[in-house]
Amino acid sequence: MSFVIEDYLKEAACEVEQAMDKLLPSGKERMFSRHAGLESTGLLIESMRYSLFAGGKRIRPILALATVETLGGNRQAALPVACSLELIHTYSLIHDDLPAMDDDDFRRGKPTNHKVYGEAVAVLAGDALLTLAFQVLSQVEMPQREKELLQLIRILSDASGYAGMIGGQMADIQAEGKQPDPQTLEFIHRHKTGDLLRAAVQMGAVFAGANEQEILHLTLYAMNLGLAFQIQDDLLDVEGNADQLGKSTGADEAHGKLTYPSLFGLEESHKKLNETTQQALSALNHLPHDTTVLREIANYLLTRVN
Amino acid sequence: MSFVIEDYLKEAACEVEQAMDKLLPSGKERMFSRHAGLESTGLLIESMRYSLFAGGKRIRPILALATVETLGGNRQAALPVACSLELIHTYSLIHDDLPAMDDDDFRRGKPTNHKVYGEAVAVLAGDALLTLAFQVLSQVEMPQREKELLQLIRILSDASGYAGMIGGQMADIQAEGKQPDPQTLEFIHRHKTGDLLRAAVQMGAVFAGANEQEILHLTLYAMNLGLAFQIQDDLLDVEGNADQLGKSTGADEAHGKLTYPSLFGLEESHKKLNETTQQALSALNHLPHDTTVLREIANYLLTRVN
Repeated sequence: MSFVIEDYLKEAACEVEQAMDKLLPSGKERMFSRHAGLESTGLLIESMRYSLFAGGKRIRPILALATVETLGGNRQAALPVACSLELIHTYSLIHDDLPAMDDDDFRRGKPTNHKVYGEAVAVLAGDALLTLAFQVLSQVEMPQREKELLQLIRILSDASGYAGMIGGQMADIQAEGKQPDPQTLEFIHRHKTGDLLRAAVQMGAVFAGANEQEILHLTLYAMNLGLAFQIQDDLLDVEGNADQLGKSTGADEAHGKLTYPSLFGLEESHKKLNETTQQALSALNHLPHDTTVLREIANYLLTRVN
Repeated sequence: MSFVIEDYLKEAACEVEQAMDKLLPSGKERMFSRHAGLESTGLLIESMRYSLFAGGKRIRPILALATVETLGGNRQAALPVACSLELIHTYSLIHDDLPAMDDDDFRRGKPTNHKVYGEAVAVLAGDALLTLAFQVLSQVEMPQREKELLQLIRILSDASGYAGMIGGQMADIQAEGKQPDPQTLEFIHRHKTGDLLRAAVQMGAVFAGANEQEILHLTLYAMNLGLAFQIQDDLLDVEGNADQLGKSTGADEAHGKLTYPSLFGLEESHKKLNETTQQALSALNHLPHDTTVLREIANYLLTRVN
């Protein structure tokens, strides 16, 4: 039986969603409470869950799980660690969609969080998902391996902080409408999307007990994968199908966003996409493990349509 | 020489500010970079520092340090732990002040973050300060005591998450303009302000290696202190002096906020303030340590004018 990446991804996404469902208890029973305090907590949880379960590829948690699996680690036990990445990713989407930021009304074909719950709740739901990532990580059971658990928290917080993902988003909003320059484009991509994808692979590696050499090669894989992912994202906004994407195309250009196609043109962007994907795959050659899953994920992301 | 609480607080606040200054490197040198990506990180850091160093009593970190000191722990080593509380507190103020939330133009006599840097940057600066709290904690040096460090991360993330501080803020914005009810008022206060003050004392206790009994009594102290703190806050908004407060009074009433004076009247609120302060002090009687500092902090908060 041959390996079918689409089936693997679907199954892994399902696992991640089940795990997330347990991490954030539904607020439903609280909603019927006559006590306004608990009622509002119920609404907060509902808004957090609305965005958390609004679909999405779950690519960050899946990358973490695939890395654990590749290195022979305990995939099941790594689920909460993997979920923490999706919590961070989801919060960043909620805040990025706010009127003061990208002002997006739709995300994955559904109204964005603030369109449903209002801006105030959307800000708080984002804050709460961010915080939940660290609540979850700090409660992971890793007996005798507390040092590694702290390292996971360090990787995630650094990758998503001011010098990581948030720094990338900041550069992105500051660059809108400005003269394009390749250094800034690379900075935005490396941090806004790249850092969290890299963190996913590194966290999987640390969880599985990888050595320094293994972490190094996996980091190279992840950094190139992240870059390829973002170039493809930019290309899909120009060449993609709005129905498949679940959002309108051409949004980047309308916002005056700095993108690969706008800076290098379509042909050069496609070339760069292929190059970085090849570099991601080459990094895996240095690992003694069966890296089929990580390879297939890279190939899948290269050819994705949404 | 007698103990003067004002001097103690001033000195401790200074220590906390020096420690925070080291935790978040000034972005100045980056601001002169010609690379737009780094330039925007510089601006992000500047906005984070703007709110972080906009004054404030630093009561949360000071409570943590005072608890460490009371239990005979290493006060100096606890500084980063103490600072993580102020990072969380500061982010919550930035987000609470946003137009979609409380829509405040001034805080401690200075324009709020979004008035200076715009809403988008204010959202990101808040996110980045929240994340920095966990970056800082995950890097604290506690050799052989990684379990306790994880416990600190658990206490802080739980206290500031959806069932803690954010849940309190959510209840607060949901309650605006609604029929007042004591249960909801208590819920808001316990979580919005109380949880982080409690976390401060608990984190200090865990850092200093307190046993379960000690943590229990200190938690009772902190919970009552937190309630007293919030009642006093409500009272100051009615009876306070705008110049001393650094913000206009009567804002709660204008916003239709649920407060102690609005629900119980001034006389009853003062009575409640005295009662909870007494309960905070009584809890300290069960500790075999010299609790002068913690007592003086409670008395100071009772009589504060801003």
